[in-house]
Amino acid sequence: MNIRLLIEYDGTDFSGWQRQPHKPSIQETIEKILYKMTRERITVQGSGRTDSGVHARGQVANFHTRSTRAATTWREILNHHLPKSVRVLKSEEAPESFHSLKSATGKIYEYRILNRAVASALHRNSYHFSRPLNWQAIQKASKHFEGTHDFKSLQGARATVKTTTRTIHSIHIQDEGDGFFVIRVYATGFLKQMMRTLVGTLLKVGEGKTSPDEIPEILSKKDRRAAGPTVPSIGLFLHRVLY
Amino acid sequence: MNIRLLIEYDGTDFSGWQRQPHKPSIQETIEKILYKMTRERITVQGSGRTDSGVHARGQVANFHTRSTRAATTWREILNHHLPKSVRVLKSEEAPESFHSLKSATGKIYEYRILNRAVASALHRNSYHFSRPLNWQAIQKASKHFEGTHDFKSLQGARATVKTTTRTIHSIHIQDEGDGFFVIRVYATGFLKQMMRTLVGTLLKVGEGKTSPDEIPEILSKKDRRAAGPTVPSIGLFLHRVLY
Repeated sequence: MNIRLLIEYDGTDFSGWQRQPHKPSIQETIEKILYKMTRERITVQGSGRTDSGVHARGQVANFHTRSTRAATTWREILNHHLPKSVRVLKSEEAPESFHSLKSATGKIYEYRILNRAVASALHRNSYHFSRPLNWQAIQKASKHFEGTHDFKSLQGARATVKTTTRTIHSIHIQDEGDGFFVIRVYATGFLKQMMRTLVGTLLKVGEGKTSPDEIPEILSKKDRRAAGPTVPSIGLFLHRVLY
Repeated sequence: MNIRLLIEYDGTDFSGWQRQPHKPSIQETIEKILYKMTRERITVQGSGRTDSGVHARGQVANFHTRSTRAATTWREILNHHLPKSVRVLKSEEAPESFHSLKSATGKIYEYRILNRAVASALHRNSYHFSRPLNWQAIQKASKHFEGTHDFKSLQGARATVKTTTRTIHSIHIQDEGDGFFVIRVYATGFLKQMMRTLVGTLLKVGEGKTSPDEIPEILSKKDRRAAGPTVPSIGLFLHRVLY
């Protein structure tokens, strides 16, 4: 049976989604529980890696099992054994052909920024940026990222993908009050660290160090050094995966 | 000089606002830092106690000092020494007569409930209530609490106040999506555990165990046993103090 999971997690204490030696990952945490329950060596396929410290509200994963247990019961079983920082919101049977990575048609990421003098005692999963930002300029710059472009300038080092062209369907910036801002990006796919470099570039615009209209030039250079810094993973959330 | 502070805190790891033996309180944590800085035995007066585990977005406190340091610099000094779960959002000079408890004219508390099958990995400062609730009935019941009433039925045990009559100016219930609901109560003052008992009574209505129109009768009994249970402190926030 092919089981599809919808997963929420606080990435603070994990090295990211993907299994790797000597570090706790969300994938391995789930796979260990599945092994205990089934004695099968199950691989849990995620819709994509999330980097160390990145959170998810709607990570999608799937796994194949010989167990005939009802698909919906996996939610409760997994939540019983998982740490509280990882919750399975849904488990359901998927068609045999469903593959959480290959079947995905788009993703929505959100980046949360707290733009005020003092950090928050309560909402710590956001990037605290204390210097003033021009959010109108950021809004204007964000429009230049929309559409189909070669995003090579926003790609992190040591990435190995065939093509660096992606389509950003939309970028929404929301002022949530009390200094909190959310940058939401809906794209066909994201290059390595693309979301964090995109936000870092927008913050340079917000500080007045880059003009909104310089964005097309930054993209056309296809050089990581043309873009802004990579912002910390603490404010990044995989919001939704679309199929 | 009389210094007024606006304070945000995550109450999870504290025994509440008020100093007490052998337990970490927010008040004592701040007073210890002030002692180190001034060598004065300073009492930091809060607008009221918050119970163990209760959070605050806008606790107000004040203290008198002989220090001639600019009032606004206390914010940075305190934040430098405070744990990250406590942040001073503002420090300013107040008139000598200002008293954060006695000068207060009203308070707003919020109670956050996550009403869905699975708890949240990300937003843990909310009360997870997995059984279905009728929010229309809760909304209807809440209206009966508005106005000036004797709230003795909602008062926790071993409380010692002269009068149990208070005025609730308004109760707002907001559906924030994804199963999150916020109950916001603005009142002249709150009796001991009143907010948590009020919410517990509303949840009994939401479960269909109490009818919305039974609220006036519950209040008229002036007996704690007539009201619902005291909900956990984890979902409770002191939102704002009014002067």
